[in-house]
Amino acid sequence: MSRQPDFNVLTATCPSRTSLARIANKWTAMVVIALSAGDRMRFGDLRTTVDGISGKVLTETLRDLERDGLVARHAYAEIPPRVEYELTALGRTLETPLQALGHWAEEHITEVLAAREEYDARR
Amino acid sequence: MSRQPDFNVLTATCPSRTSLARIANKWTAMVVIALSAGDRMRFGDLRTTVDGISGKVLTETLRDLERDGLVARHAYAEIPPRVEYELTALGRTLETPLQALGHWAEEHITEVLAAREEYDARR
Repeated sequence: MSRQPDFNVLTATCPSRTSLARIANKWTAMVVIALSAGDRMRFGDLRTTVDGISGKVLTETLRDLERDGLVARHAYAEIPPRVEYELTALGRTLETPLQALGHWAEEHITEVLAAREEYDARR
Repeated sequence: MSRQPDFNVLTATCPSRTSLARIANKWTAMVVIALSAGDRMRFGDLRTTVDGISGKVLTETLRDLERDGLVARHAYAEIPPRVEYELTALGRTLETPLQALGHWAEEHITEVLAAREEYDARR
């Protein structure tokens, strides 16, 4: 991948930084990881899978991801109403880099915890 | 990369989630991208390169990255004091996934902006 000359996330006013802020986010990462199994998921399923996320944060995260074209929301006119979420084609291009961050955190947590212990002992 | 069975970022109490929160962060991504050129950088250089970051946020980001073992801080007993930062070996393993997020934001911002426009027009 070559860097686009017209856009640079390190420039404060570049619009690409607003996109980086959306994707370089722990809740975005966890929702994309949850949805990357491929099946559409209901709000309640997502809330269970992304353990510990509040309803408010999940609502905001899904709305922001939908706005950026990363998640599609499907509302069915049923009683009770049914709403399902899935990654769009654009959202699926984030599966690999965001799963990589999740794997990194899981694979290196022992080293990170040891570094924290050492850092805190020096203070 | 296979997922470690003992750690799962989707579990609220798993320590790996605290590491994901640190790395899935826009300021972490930008500081790692800035430092991935390889040279040690002074605080002022970093603040210039990560355009728009406040001194307070940069200080906190560097301290958190140092605590997690991702950035090394080198302080020289000079007048005036000189402090330089560089990625550790562990931090360098984040260059690829975090640069991938930066590239993604730059490469897809046109699609993201179009999605936002369409979303906002529907509201």
